[in-house]
Amino acid sequence: MSFFAALGDRIDRIDSVVSVGLDPDPARLPDSVRDADLPRFAFNRRIIDATHEYAAAYKPNAAFYEDPDGWRALRETIAYAHGKDVPVLLDAKRGDIGNTARQYADLLEHADGITVNPYLGGDSLQPFLSKAEKGVFVLCRTSNPGGADLQDRELTDGRTVYERVADLAAGWNEHGNVGLVVGATAPDELESLRDRVPELPFLVPGVGAQGGDIEAAATAGLADGVGLVNSSRGIIFAGEDGPNWERAAGVAAKRLRDELNAYRG
Amino acid sequence: MSFFAALGDRIDRIDSVVSVGLDPDPARLPDSVRDADLPRFAFNRRIIDATHEYAAAYKPNAAFYEDPDGWRALRETIAYAHGKDVPVLLDAKRGDIGNTARQYADLLEHADGITVNPYLGGDSLQPFLSKAEKGVFVLCRTSNPGGADLQDRELTDGRTVYERVADLAAGWNEHGNVGLVVGATAPDELESLRDRVPELPFLVPGVGAQGGDIEAAATAGLADGVGLVNSSRGIIFAGEDGPNWERAAGVAAKRLRDELNAYRG
Repeated sequence: MSFFAALGDRIDRIDSVVSVGLDPDPARLPDSVRDADLPRFAFNRRIIDATHEYAAAYKPNAAFYEDPDGWRALRETIAYAHGKDVPVLLDAKRGDIGNTARQYADLLEHADGITVNPYLGGDSLQPFLSKAEKGVFVLCRTSNPGGADLQDRELTDGRTVYERVADLAAGWNEHGNVGLVVGATAPDELESLRDRVPELPFLVPGVGAQGGDIEAAATAGLADGVGLVNSSRGIIFAGEDGPNWERAAGVAAKRLRDELNAYRG
Repeated sequence: MSFFAALGDRIDRIDSVVSVGLDPDPARLPDSVRDADLPRFAFNRRIIDATHEYAAAYKPNAAFYEDPDGWRALRETIAYAHGKDVPVLLDAKRGDIGNTARQYADLLEHADGITVNPYLGGDSLQPFLSKAEKGVFVLCRTSNPGGADLQDRELTDGRTVYERVADLAAGWNEHGNVGLVVGATAPDELESLRDRVPELPFLVPGVGAQGGDIEAAATAGLADGVGLVNSSRGIIFAGEDGPNWERAAGVAAKRLRDELNAYRG
């Protein structure tokens, strides 16, 4: 089954478009997991236990796993999420040329989808795009202020750089496996992009700690009901290292689901 | 000492601007290293032994190390190169927002420099740029055909996207630690960029297997004598899995050094 078909089934089944970002910042892990063999996995496992009934997907960010133990923790996290029937999107933002891109595409051996960076163009993304059953989310308009440095610049053909990226991504969607990453902190762009590429599901980060627009995320993020709205720190560190941190994460995930569902059709 | 000062010293000492790309594609490793505990490190170690007197820097591409054993092999490779007094530039092409970029910047704990992707803008690169003693090479004009999809597009201010990236990078160079990645397969752009940002050293990939322009790389790649011209497969797999693969790598590195030196001032 294709990534978006599977994701759509899960969204329908649990009535949620919440993506939970699994970014286990070592400096913020609760004391109770620090002595585990793999503290990041121990943390993620308990977060998954507490949140999976509200999670349409998990989104580990690769940055938090880039060391020898980290990759073990990441693989176990993916396997554990799969054990709960939740798809996993690796937020890797990769992009490299031919030979190397093919190597990066092996990251999809374990995960169900990935985020990629469009700066190197279409051929750099082919090794990802050609995996028809995997989801490929192309960075388009990001949720940080510096996103404007390049993405918002206007081209001579009247489009902004990020609009060109959206159009390119629509053209790369031969297998129906392409989505866009569009930040909730730019609600106007989110809405205009929804009109521009109605067929592409969005992954919308920035609604939690970054304070993005919940309504725009819920209404413009979805393509025919399919899409993801992500919160990372706002869920996983909702209880910081208090004794009830797992419950706090579950409550935060449920709250985000409910807030989003208030706007979903 | 800053990255570029140290690199300049090494370039002067060994009279070479060659960067050797350590991309140990598992499918192409010689039989003689396959039984090692860490085959990629065993391969790299012997490549480093054979090439270090011609190597101004080593450039492992992170894509070839993204698994548990891979990160161990990468760290040992970096340590071994440092044992030979050769700086190491991690070709990671990372770029992510605040919280996550800070995490990615930890990759510089071991390596001396890194490549980064500018699509997310200046704030996404600050955690790298603020490490004044480390080198930060910003992707500008890449050596693949798809580089044209975004990089060559013209903005309403008359610049191309890659020219805007070059200008942004020059503005990000507060600590004198910023360079650009400019492919040797686009010699005209390489030369015009050298005029545009005369103070920024370039990392020029694409001269080996990709057939880029050696003369343009040697003349336009350097800023006041400092810069790197990279070959990966053209050196490390020069002997494929023949019995003399290490010697073939050494010969290929020396040949590239000599070809480049014929054009250096």
